[in-house]
Amino acid sequence: MAHATTGVGMVKTHYFDCAEDLRLSSGFVLPGFCLAYETYGVLNPQRDNAILLLHALSGDAHAAGFHSPSDRKPGWWDDMIGPGRAFDTNKYFFICSNVLGGCKGSSGPLTLHPTTGRRWASDFPVVTIADMVAAQVRLISHLGINRLYAVAGGSMGGFQAIEWMIAHPDRVQSAILLATSAISSPQAVAWNAIGRQAIMRDPKWVGGHYELDDAPVDGLSVARMIGHITYVSDASLKQKFPHRFAHAMTPAYTLADEFTVETYLNYQAQRFNERFDANSYLYITKAMDYWDVTREYGELHMAFQKWRKPTLLVSFDSDWLYPTSDALAIFNAIGDSASHVELHSTAGHDAFLIESDVQTPLIQQFLTQVESVTV
Amino acid sequence: MAHATTGVGMVKTHYFDCAEDLRLSSGFVLPGFCLAYETYGVLNPQRDNAILLLHALSGDAHAAGFHSPSDRKPGWWDDMIGPGRAFDTNKYFFICSNVLGGCKGSSGPLTLHPTTGRRWASDFPVVTIADMVAAQVRLISHLGINRLYAVAGGSMGGFQAIEWMIAHPDRVQSAILLATSAISSPQAVAWNAIGRQAIMRDPKWVGGHYELDDAPVDGLSVARMIGHITYVSDASLKQKFPHRFAHAMTPAYTLADEFTVETYLNYQAQRFNERFDANSYLYITKAMDYWDVTREYGELHMAFQKWRKPTLLVSFDSDWLYPTSDALAIFNAIGDSASHVELHSTAGHDAFLIESDVQTPLIQQFLTQVESVTV
Repeated sequence: MAHATTGVGMVKTHYFDCAEDLRLSSGFVLPGFCLAYETYGVLNPQRDNAILLLHALSGDAHAAGFHSPSDRKPGWWDDMIGPGRAFDTNKYFFICSNVLGGCKGSSGPLTLHPTTGRRWASDFPVVTIADMVAAQVRLISHLGINRLYAVAGGSMGGFQAIEWMIAHPDRVQSAILLATSAISSPQAVAWNAIGRQAIMRDPKWVGGHYELDDAPVDGLSVARMIGHITYVSDASLKQKFPHRFAHAMTPAYTLADEFTVETYLNYQAQRFNERFDANSYLYITKAMDYWDVTREYGELHMAFQKWRKPTLLVSFDSDWLYPTSDALAIFNAIGDSASHVELHSTAGHDAFLIESDVQTPLIQQFLTQVESVTV
Repeated sequence: MAHATTGVGMVKTHYFDCAEDLRLSSGFVLPGFCLAYETYGVLNPQRDNAILLLHALSGDAHAAGFHSPSDRKPGWWDDMIGPGRAFDTNKYFFICSNVLGGCKGSSGPLTLHPTTGRRWASDFPVVTIADMVAAQVRLISHLGINRLYAVAGGSMGGFQAIEWMIAHPDRVQSAILLATSAISSPQAVAWNAIGRQAIMRDPKWVGGHYELDDAPVDGLSVARMIGHITYVSDASLKQKFPHRFAHAMTPAYTLADEFTVETYLNYQAQRFNERFDANSYLYITKAMDYWDVTREYGELHMAFQKWRKPTLLVSFDSDWLYPTSDALAIFNAIGDSASHVELHSTAGHDAFLIESDVQTPLIQQFLTQVESVTV
């Protein structure tokens, strides 16, 4: 359901500057950091109605609303956030921050090194999902929130939600995990790795120290195209592109672009280059590819042994990047406090961003049930 | 079943130089052409035991045996070809030719333009599956063969086999179609298109007129990596790479390669660059992406209306590039003379190259049945 208007109206991005050191998984000590974040709805006086929304690879802090009246598109999860929507701003206070390593306001390769004053670029330390969440914990404390009512995210957003459940179970009351996994599969790692190869083999990458007006746009384009196809299903591509050729009924018999899907991918890649940094793509995909909760905890159920709280798992039958089997593995590891729903959609992995109609009642009902458990 | 020794022993590549014009699908008239080909077994005096084997994207004429005693690897389908094997050289005469547009001896971007004496490079005309087969028809006639006992191929080899069935039904007695499709899906087109983008965006491609010692190896590497992952299944990757990291148990926390699948893909890409031409990759994938027998014939059953001969269709349950549904579409279009078998394998699309154990009895039995139909 694409709403005609945004639910939250005009919003602003805030910036949390944390001056304290952050020790990363690698051992590297980051001398302070910044997180860009937005909020929607009102934090209640008890400060117990806050829900942290967690974004995926190409997302950012701007989950809903418009930044200016001239914006053509609202935030990335706008259909899901607002009064009466899946994430109901009449009841809850939502926080969404750009991940550490991102390129939309939070500390990452695009931001300035505190000592040299130059961009970190590829000198930025490699971060993990745990590091992203450690920075979020500081933000939540800064906002005076002791315990989150829920964490919610799809894809890499789900990775972060799982990290909250495992590493900070006392600070979260419930979790919503959409189209996600507890372990990045070799195939998922491969797609990200090939994307990184495309970027790092682009001569304009120059070891990561490129000028922003001469960035490795070709490498990032190829990386984005690969990602894009993994986010959709063959069925959705067939629906979207009933015609093979973009501008003709017959082949052009040249090496130039002519397939509809090819023209579309080029357009998408160009738009992605306008809004995303190639180094950030390397850092975030690397964090995703490290993701494997069994490395530290052994069996999956051991990772979740301190987690006995309400958990909603949603998977989509056409999602081949994080298939239903990945959700079931988490469901089985958590046990009684989890519920799992497989939804039908042809949208593939992207379904968690698109299928607001079917997700809305599930999420609303789940959050209401959490309320009764909490009281 | 990997046989300890090759079935056909030492073999040689032959070259068929056709001096006559070949009018291509594009209307371009190729002033003669060359096909590299190999043969295994003996053509009988009646010249009616010839089977044409058709190769896939990265294949060539060298399907079986060794070229020299120092060869480390035999031809690409060696396990399937030889005395007593699926393609039994005691009974049949096998022909395998490198496709038009290829880079292993047949006319293509690597060969010399007859007038200028320079490599065709990207001035080579764009070819189609129909053009590849039209050249093969000339080769078969040259060898004095009026009618083929069978055509057999997997993946793009299956495309060519289908083209034989549709366009030259009187010259073929039966067909074996493995892991193939009558229509390149938008997803299959997308993967090829992204590979072409990787090559053509590589500055070393220089419009296709690169020096062979300064070829766009980075672009071709990325294209090959993408292809490689589409040829295997997530399950086979999990079997092959039980460990996430190539050289450690924990992350290196650098941007450098460290995942086992990443190291493997880099190695495979490097080997591919040693044996394949980037321009040829463009031409062959373009031919594949044009592949859609319904464009000319409308409904699929109309394409096969002149074909009433024995047809064996084999698909593999883990092949997500040309899934079983694609084979069933062909099976339903052909009707009574076709049989379809879905085989279990974790090997994905590559199964047709690997799973000789399960394919061998099916193919042997089918070819014997064709004999009884023919007599």
